Parts: sequence; structure tokens; C-alpha cells
Amino acid sequence: MSRRCRLAIDAMSGDAGVTATVPAAASVMASDPDLELILVGQPDVLHPALQQAGLSDHPRLRVQAASEVVEMDESPSQALRYKKDSSMRRAIDQVRQGEADACVSAGNTGALMATARYVLKTLPGIDRPAICTTIPCRGGEFRMLDLGANIDCSAEHLFQFAVMGAELAEAVSAGQRPRIGLLNLGEEEIKGNDQVKQAAQLLQASDMDYVGYVEGDRMFANVADVVVCDGFTGNVALKSSEGVAAMISHYLREEFQRNLFSRLAGLVALPVLRSLRRRLDPRRYNGASLLGLRGVVVKSHGGADEVAFAQAIRTGRVEAMQAIPNRIDARLGQIFGKEMAR
Amino acid sequence: MSRRCRLAIDAMSGDAGVTATVPAAASVMASDPDLELILVGQPDVLHPALQQAGLSDHPRLRVQAASEVVEMDESPSQALRYKKDSSMRRAIDQVRQGEADACVSAGNTGALMATARYVLKTLPGIDRPAICTTIPCRGGEFRMLDLGANIDCSAEHLFQFAVMGAELAEAVSAGQRPRIGLLNLGEEEIKGNDQVKQAAQLLQASDMDYVGYVEGDRMFANVADVVVCDGFTGNVALKSSEGVAAMISHYLREEFQRNLFSRLAGLVALPVLRSLRRRLDPRRYNGASLLGLRGVVVKSHGGADEVAFAQAIRTGRVEAMQAIPNRIDARLGQIFGKEMAR
Repeated sequence: MSRRCRLAIDAMSGDAGVTATVPAAASVMASDPDLELILVGQPDVLHPALQQAGLSDHPRLRVQAASEVVEMDESPSQALRYKKDSSMRRAIDQVRQGEADACVSAGNTGALMATARYVLKTLPGIDRPAICTTIPCRGGEFRMLDLGANIDCSAEHLFQFAVMGAELAEAVSAGQRPRIGLLNLGEEEIKGNDQVKQAAQLLQASDMDYVGYVEGDRMFANVADVVVCDGFTGNVALKSSEGVAAMISHYLREEFQRNLFSRLAGLVALPVLRSLRRRLDPRRYNGASLLGLRGVVVKSHGGADEVAFAQAIRTGRVEAMQAIPNRIDARLGQIFGKEMAR
Repeated sequence: MSRRCRLAIDAMSGDAGVTATVPAAASVMASDPDLELILVGQPDVLHPALQQAGLSDHPRLRVQAASEVVEMDESPSQALRYKKDSSMRRAIDQVRQGEADACVSAGNTGALMATARYVLKTLPGIDRPAICTTIPCRGGEFRMLDLGANIDCSAEHLFQFAVMGAELAEAVSAGQRPRIGLLNLGEEEIKGNDQVKQAAQLLQASDMDYVGYVEGDRMFANVADVVVCDGFTGNVALKSSEGVAAMISHYLREEFQRNLFSRLAGLVALPVLRSLRRRLDPRRYNGASLLGLRGVVVKSHGGADEVAFAQAIRTGRVEAMQAIPNRIDARLGQIFGKEMAR
């Protein structure tokens, strides 16, 4: 398999726009000689940034003009209807036209999902695309979906999420069979809603490695490679986790600045604390996958800096190389075939 | 107002049973001369533990015999139907009979909720009791409910939770008007389910200090004193938060043990790290309130040790003194009255 790969980058997207996307493009291209990039955006903004980054005449980079930018707070329907020449839309167009193997954007999640769904369409057998991201846990990481694209989900939707998450996890982990868990309440409590219970039955009957219900705290103990839930729960769980991590980091700083002794202790402990921070750096996990579409679309955090956006580009690169949509499609065909044969 | 208060303690409850509950009782009684306790449980287990703790003939303590114990994994209906002489049931009975102002148990949540609901009944105007706990955040703490008693909640249920949480928060914070938030997805995403949207309208129309939607991460930035959600979401959010905190603490230990230098740094930083741990010690926040009942019932974590269980007793003490069920009842009467007058 050729390692050549071409990605379309929504260069105008995110809070930082070209000041993050262009340097990120430069750094990923420098370390990956098989990567070609299409930077999509307003030429008068893009060209000066490219010049500054020394990318003006780069043989593996071209600029695709797009006159508009989708705002971070713009409604998805608004963006879809009125911004047909946005950098986001044009970047997704590149994927549909076969010009790019994936597209990466730090733009507004709702608009990106709506536009990608409209332009690329969903895979046969998928009712709704889902947002999936990688989260660190003890001694590893896991994938979680959905994270906000779908608020109310049926058992069938949850099952489809599991299939998509499993294909992604398996492709990226070099073929290891992923453990699939369903996010649910503790056993002590009343035992989950009907959708989750029915999804559990569907998963049990499948040939996936279904490990059962996973509680919120157990996710971080490395008990599943893919954790499946509806988008409301997933969004709240992910953001709560981020909130706690930020609070602990805040308190850690505060404690180390309390008095002269603690400042000295902080100085001594600095290399260790830095190593911890590196390990849990959210920028290392930037790049959520919009799964279930006929093409690879990666959503970067809106506040991404150069380092974080580069990670999102690498995520798009891996998913394009692994042809994740094709894998999901083939898997759904298998499941469908089996069901037909019953 | 007299400060005298009498609590019923389910002394057999929790993973540790009397080895946690009895020393906790001793420590709280020692620091609170107005507190009387009824320790409920099997006399042959309780008496030796009391003797060991020097509580055998304590003038403010009496033992109430109960022959059975509800197991941690016992189903609520099973416990309710077949364990009528359990320490849990007998402790709740003390509240119903007016013998105790509150009851505290580290037993199985489902059984405690079912039994309390059956024995004490809900307040008029409350469809479903909810579980509420206190969670630390930057520069303060907030209360969150429901945490697992109710999986599917209507807008009216969420509104009732808000009323109950607000009364508790106001009573405990010496009358400060609490800020009420509804847990929801980020603005960028599709904007929440119908129940949450309708609950927002109810809260906007009320005279509570409603601050709007709160995202999972913002909870920890001290933006609301009461965060309202359905029990599925609340349970997942709380447990995810606990899971992340445990993971960070695990990594912190690991990083400080990586090599000789980091061990030395850890030694120097130990007082600072201890101070951080004290600040976020979950034992300091032990004791969830079962709100909406005609009596105060506090649920301790099942794995509580002496320190944690003592905190749950203190929580019960405060809620009994503040007569939380009466306050909620009065507030519901006001709201009901207003509605009648329209």
C-alpha cells in the first residue's frame, strides 16, 4: 500500500485560524514526506501566513481558495445554507471530489457535522454519524462515542456506534480486537435505561468482544477500548472529566505557590510535574473523528494551538491511510449479510 | 432553636460495617455534645464494637436491635420484601416514628432509596426523590442531583430537583441564594434534549436564581451552586470525575517514583501533595442526601472508612437541624400556592 496521502485542511478554522493551522501544516509536512496538503481558505489571509512559515512554494502543498469562513457560533443550518464558499465546505468538497483522502477542521462542530453529512452522505446501514475521540486512561487509552452529535439514541444507534468505534480502534491498534463497553450506571443503582439494555443484547449477540456495562469511573481503569453511549451522556462525561483535570491542575499550581517552602518544593518537583503534564496533555489527544460518513472528517478542538492542530492532522492522516469509512462499510455489509442469512 | 438532635445510624451497613460506623459514631459524639445516637444492628456484633470504642454505657447512645443486614448487592425489592428486620429498615423506622431526626446508612443505594420511599413516603408535590451530593470545585463546592435514583426524567422532575437542591443549598450556606444550573451540552453542539429545554423554561419562570445551562467542565469552575440533571447523566458525570481524579493521582504517584531524582523530589513535595490530597479528599464530601422524602436520609459511600462515615453523620446532623424536608415542603407549598392563584 502506498503511503502517499493527501489531506484537505480548513485553514481558516478555529479560534486561532491560520496562526495555528499553517504552522501545524508545516510541522507535520516536515516529518512526513508522503503527505500532501490542500490548504483551504481566503488567499489574502493564507498566502502571507504560508510565506511566514516558509511554505510558499512547497511542492506538496497547494492552496484552494474559499471566500467565506463559518463562525464558531454560527448555526449549522445557517452555515449549510448561506456559506457555500466557506473554507469548511470547500475542504469537505475536496474529499467528495476525490481530491483529498480526508479533511481536518477546527471549526464549529455542529456546522462541520451538518455540512459533512450533507456533502459526503452517511454510509449505508448508518442512521446517524457520531463523534468519537481518544481519551487517556491508566496504562493506555480508549475511544468514546458519541460525544454530542446525537442526543437521543435508540439501541440500534448505539449498536452502530459500537461497530464504527470497533473498526476505528482495530485499524489504529494494528488489528488487536477491541473490547467494547456500554456506559451505564453502577450495578447498585437501578440498572440503566431501555436503550442501553437493548443495545447490550445486540452486542451480546454480535461477534464483537463485548465486555458489558462500564461505569464512569471504570472507563479510566482501562477496562474497554471503546466506550459507547448517547451523545448527551458522552458530552457530559468527557467535559466533566476535562473539568476535574483542569481543577486539579489549578489546585496543584496553587498549592505549590502557597508559601516559600512550597515554591521551593515546586521548583524541585518541576521536572516531574512537567512529565505528568506531558503525559496527560490534551493536545496529544486532539482530533475527534466524525464516523459513519463516506469520507474521513476530523474535528480539531476549536481552541487548538499549533501543537494540537498538528495532532488533528496526524489523526486525519492515520484514518485516511486506514480507509476507515471503507472498513466500516465492509463490516456493516458482513453484519447485514449475516442477518440476511438467518 | 435547640441544638439537640438524635440520629439513627445503620451500624451494620457498608463494606466495613461496625469497624467504620462505631468509631465514626464515637468521634462525632465526642465533638458534638448535643448529638444523640441510636445505633441500629445486631446486638452481638454491635456490643463488642461499642465496648472496644469505649461507648458501652454512653449516656447519649442507645442500641436498637435489628436481626438482619441488607447485602450490598441485594435487589431493592428483595430487601424491601424479605428483610423487614434489617438494620437499614429499622434505622429508617426510627425516623418515621419520630424517635430520630435523621438516619444515616452506608448500605446499598437502591435498597436504601426503595425502603426510605416505602417507609417515609415522598413529600406532596414530589413525584420522585433524588440523590444529591456535594462536589468540590474551584474556590468552593456545588451540589448535584439526581445521581442515579431516576433514569428518565421529565422537565417537571428536573424542576422539582432544582427546588429541592436549592432549599438544601440555601439552608446549609446560611441563607445565601443559590445559583441553579441545568447540566447540558455545549452551545456549539445540538442544544440539549426536550426535557432539559422545557425545564429551562420552568426555571426561568420561577423566582430561583437560574443561571442557565452548565456544561460538564464548567461545573468545576464554580458557576452554579446546584447543578440539576437526570440520574443517568448525573451518575456518569460524577463517576467520570472520580475516575479522572483517581487516574491523575495514580500518575502523580507513578511519576514521583520513576527514578531516584523524582523520588527525592517527591519527598520534598510531600507536604504540598498531602495538602492537595486533603483538599480534594472525597471523604470530606461523603454523605449524599435522599431528597424529597418526609424525613432526612443520608447515604454514605459503601466503602466509607471511619473518617468518611463520620462526615456522613455530620451531614445528617446538619440536615436534621435545618429540617430540610420541612423547608422543601414549605417551598413547594409556596410554588403550588402561586400556581393556584394564577
